[in-house]
Amino acid sequence: MLHQGTHEFAVNTRGRGFYEITGPVAAWLREHRVRNGLLTLHLRHTSASLLIQENADPEVRRDLERFFSRLVPDGDPLFQHTAEGGDDMPAHVRTALTTVNLSIPIVESRLTLGTWQGIYLWEHRHDPHARRVAAHFIGE
Amino acid sequence: MLHQGTHEFAVNTRGRGFYEITGPVAAWLREHRVRNGLLTLHLRHTSASLLIQENADPEVRRDLERFFSRLVPDGDPLFQHTAEGGDDMPAHVRTALTTVNLSIPIVESRLTLGTWQGIYLWEHRHDPHARRVAAHFIGE
Amino acid sequence: MLHQGTHEFAVNTRGRGFYEITGPVAAWLREHRVRNGLLTLHLRHTSASLLIQENADPEVRRDLERFFSRLVPDGDPLFQHTAEGGDDMPAHVRTALTTVNLSIPIVESRLTLGTWQGIYLWEHRHDPHARRVAAHFIGE
Repeated sequence: MLHQGTHEFAVNTRGRGFYEITGPVAAWLREHRVRNGLLTLHLRHTSASLLIQENADPEVRRDLERFFSRLVPDGDPLFQHTAEGGDDMPAHVRTALTTVNLSIPIVESRLTLGTWQGIYLWEHRHDPHARRVAAHFIGE
Repeated sequence: MLHQGTHEFAVNTRGRGFYEITGPVAAWLREHRVRNGLLTLHLRHTSASLLIQENADPEVRRDLERFFSRLVPDGDPLFQHTAEGGDDMPAHVRTALTTVNLSIPIVESRLTLGTWQGIYLWEHRHDPHARRVAAHFIGE
Repeated sequence: MLHQGTHEFAVNTRGRGFYEITGPVAAWLREHRVRNGLLTLHLRHTSASLLIQENADPEVRRDLERFFSRLVPDGDPLFQHTAEGGDDMPAHVRTALTTVNLSIPIVESRLTLGTWQGIYLWEHRHDPHARRVAAHFIGE
């Protein structure tokens, strides 16, 4: 029978970088015995992203960080909104260039992530932050 | 009991910029008494975006606009598709760099938007446009 | 009555470029007689994207490719993860700059795509690849 559930995941970040959340999300779905359905995640912040990326070679994530640091430099004099620090406006731009929402089908009790896909919270600020991810599933 | 609903929001834009739609979307969900569930929005155009961004300091949105205007300049000679004006192809690129779909869980009769998050239609064309946003909820 | 379904679409790419999948996706929904509901697609890879873009003038897609090729150049010496070729890390970055998830409401037996919107798999690698797109619908 179709049923749904909601949850909030807490992720404490320790500065700019990638924090994998695939494990806790999959565990939550197992707990609710969702065989087939849909998972949605929404990050409740405007200076960090949710990203599905390669979970194998960590150099891929370091290269992503290198690219985005060059594309959206901290302290860029273009920006007027600087009261919260030189990494704040770049964090908003990096969030706009990526996304804060993910929706992933669940088939035969597994997220349909590819072999090399992991779900990451990408923190864009340099200081530690307490981040919250809202989650919803519907399925049977 | 699980139920669903659909709607289409009309947004008349007056040139490039951000148009907040959080209010009408939340009002529509209240009207249908969705306590827990999932909202999905889809913008039916290829030269504007849906974006969740900071709703506090308007300078953040002006800086987003400054950054994207520099990254994807109007009239860039790189582009061949120029029949609809120098801002048309940049509008398509800005749409590809952001998104036209959003999915947000609803918990205890509220969208799980963070305190500083608003839902915006980001118009990328300079002329006024009649934009349409398809909406769907499922929940109980 | 609310019901759901899942499927996996196979897309064999022949190098970098856009591959439209609107037709097979719409056919699958018709087969399941979904009148109103929600479609979600998830691409199970980290070096290709799902994109909704203009389906009219093909020059738009060629210009998108021109822009992304300039923004994220193959063989950029910035990248350290180079073992899989000079187009591999650019493919990951292009995926991060776009998206791998789409959610589209279905109303009166039709996807709420705009007149000019098509659903594309955007292959970022130069070699042919066998790509898989997970699909889910819920509706009545």
